[in-house]
Amino acid sequence: MGNLVIVRHGESQWNSQNRFTGWTDIDMTEKGVQQARCAGRALAQAGYRFDLAFTSVLRRTIRSQWLILDEMDLMFIPTVSHWRLNERHYGALTGHTRAEIIERFGEEQVWQWRRGYASRPPLMADDDARAPVRESRYRAVDPALLPLGESLEDTVARVRVFWHEAIEPVLRQDRDVLICTHGNSQRALVRLLEPAMADEEVARFDVPNGVPLVYRLNSDLAVLDRHSLQIPEATVSALL
Amino acid sequence: MGNLVIVRHGESQWNSQNRFTGWTDIDMTEKGVQQARCAGRALAQAGYRFDLAFTSVLRRTIRSQWLILDEMDLMFIPTVSHWRLNERHYGALTGHTRAEIIERFGEEQVWQWRRGYASRPPLMADDDARAPVRESRYRAVDPALLPLGESLEDTVARVRVFWHEAIEPVLRQDRDVLICTHGNSQRALVRLLEPAMADEEVARFDVPNGVPLVYRLNSDLAVLDRHSLQIPEATVSALL
Repeated sequence: MGNLVIVRHGESQWNSQNRFTGWTDIDMTEKGVQQARCAGRALAQAGYRFDLAFTSVLRRTIRSQWLILDEMDLMFIPTVSHWRLNERHYGALTGHTRAEIIERFGEEQVWQWRRGYASRPPLMADDDARAPVRESRYRAVDPALLPLGESLEDTVARVRVFWHEAIEPVLRQDRDVLICTHGNSQRALVRLLEPAMADEEVARFDVPNGVPLVYRLNSDLAVLDRHSLQIPEATVSALL
Repeated sequence: MGNLVIVRHGESQWNSQNRFTGWTDIDMTEKGVQQARCAGRALAQAGYRFDLAFTSVLRRTIRSQWLILDEMDLMFIPTVSHWRLNERHYGALTGHTRAEIIERFGEEQVWQWRRGYASRPPLMADDDARAPVRESRYRAVDPALLPLGESLEDTVARVRVFWHEAIEPVLRQDRDVLICTHGNSQRALVRLLEPAMADEEVARFDVPNGVPLVYRLNSDLAVLDRHSLQIPEATVSALL
């Protein structure tokens, strides 16, 4: 079977401020741009190649993909951007810093929201100007599917649909796939790939921004091997 | 019907050297990057929006599209890159400067190759390392379809297939379409859109790099109106 590589986008402006981002379309920092470039160059140097690439519809994953494909001399491959790969929707927490939320709701509750598999944050009001249903980019999506706040479990459920419909069929054709993703849509993919992993372990699973997570799969798409690609120090310094 | 906007890529490194580029995958100059950004910003300012975007598989059109979509806040729309939108294949002239070719073949012959509708340049040798059939990006394409040199008429013939199969159906769904293209694939599209135009006029039709050519079509995809979008001076200077 083909290789599957999942890369979390490079650092965003709100990552660097510890702000709950969710579906807000925040761009990357200069450091994030470098992280994505490094990922692309390291993948090329390690001999990877992709036939197809997926992203969410948020610019931090799309720009990361652009930078990676540019570094790999693969700008021409087919790409698909889909809302089902978006970050977990953080509901009413969206836009607030972690410190603000801790002050208001307490450390314990915030930890639950951040790392509990099934805990859903307070929902965003449905007349909130930022509700996905009001955004033109989601106008082709059934409004009943668009969230106002999600647990990680909810995120897994909507990623699962796209995994079965769009990603699995491509992998079964023995094609090499790149997915540029977010922290929680990456966790959702890990949950789908490694069903034996406990919920709590999935919720705590963490790969830094811009570090490629490489899966080798067998013909039933069972995981043979998973590792994080080391970014060589020389690659990082060459791009500084 | 939807709007159709065709933008020739920003200036490439070989454009600036008057070198026959064809299918060589040359990147843009800094000036070309600015031209593409200006096109995107001017389109956004003029109220355009796109539902789908097409490019060739050559990086000068893909990067132009990226810059345009970035400026328009439309990075998330579906995009399709296809070899049938590539530049005319310049055969054995590929990589040579206009001056070199004029010295070898004479002014009159070179004018014929450049602006004659049906004149095909000397073909590239089929064991040339640069032959498309040897490039991994074309491995899914029937080798019999891959050219070693084309007249503008040949280019029109292969663009026509993609026009009917991929672009027309989308326009008939009333969707707004952006195509980032090359000088001669743009001429090919103009030929398909304006069948009454004489061959010689098509061959001489010229739109500068980065200037959007805007078509308004009726429900039969007949042209109601065509104009070049003016890039406001203020847009250009804001991006310098």
